[in-house]
Amino acid sequence: MDWNELKETSIFPVGQPNDAYARFFDGQSWLQSLSTAQVGIANVSFEPGCRNHWHIHHAKQGGGQILLVTAGRGYYQEWGQPARELHPGDVVNIPPEVKHWHGAARDSAFQHLASRCPGWRPPTSGASRWTRQSINCYPELLLQGLVTM
Amino acid sequence: MDWNELKETSIFPVGQPNDAYARFFDGQSWLQSLSTAQVGIANVSFEPGCRNHWHIHHAKQGGGQILLVTAGRGYYQEWGQPARELHPGDVVNIPPEVKHWHGAARDSAFQHLASRCPGWRPPTSGASRWTRQSINCYPELLLQGLVTM
Repeated sequence: MDWNELKETSIFPVGQPNDAYARFFDGQSWLQSLSTAQVGIANVSFEPGCRNHWHIHHAKQGGGQILLVTAGRGYYQEWGQPARELHPGDVVNIPPEVKHWHGAARDSAFQHLASRCPGWRPPTSGASRWTRQSINCYPELLLQGLVTM
Repeated sequence: MDWNELKETSIFPVGQPNDAYARFFDGQSWLQSLSTAQVGIANVSFEPGCRNHWHIHHAKQGGGQILLVTAGRGYYQEWGQPARELHPGDVVNIPPEVKHWHGAARDSAFQHLASRCPGWRPPTSGASRWTRQSINCYPELLLQGLVTM
């Protein structure tokens, strides 16, 4: 799926260029927040070949992230495991403290909803937790040459 | 959108007839669990004219539900408020303790993802919490004649 087709057929808004997190990505991603209350949910879209760096979602309790794949073709990989190819309808439960990356295939755009998993705070503090979680995404290694596709 | 079109174009699996919760619905709904760990997420599909009864999601802390509309046309209504028409891409944050219903328009199938909002328990207890929450959905009034569409 090319980028224009993904943008035109997207159910949820594609949003804006993901400038705030650009330093954690190779390539161009797009971000649209869908829910900041209760559970934080965002629509994340990747242009072909765009992937985020290896990162970990830290949490004292609960935490982690759920990906719901809505369009295109991409990958999810946990450290030490083979990459898993993702298609629309696939769901990925990412536990806290697990090093991983996700993003588009080289030749396809890709889109997933991302739900963060609170588990230890009332819903009203959702927005600030989302910020804290993004700070916890430490890019440790560039993807290039490390992943098997 | 008719039911067959919704079924054939659904990104996430439509699943099985929603027999377990049938007593809380007028009409035929379909249910597919997408995530039971971390945050419980399900794909809920409604045949045309199918709606659930007025119900409340009780919670000691956190709680409530988020709807992410993926197909068709439907409604969400809170007690004492006008019904809100829903289309693909719409998001509804349903706070705990708020009486509400949601479902399809009379002449269209409808589909939303439903994310429950834990907020007070570690992710490993997700499955049992979902069961408890469904028991908390008390049908109090039939929709017929009560809603304005």
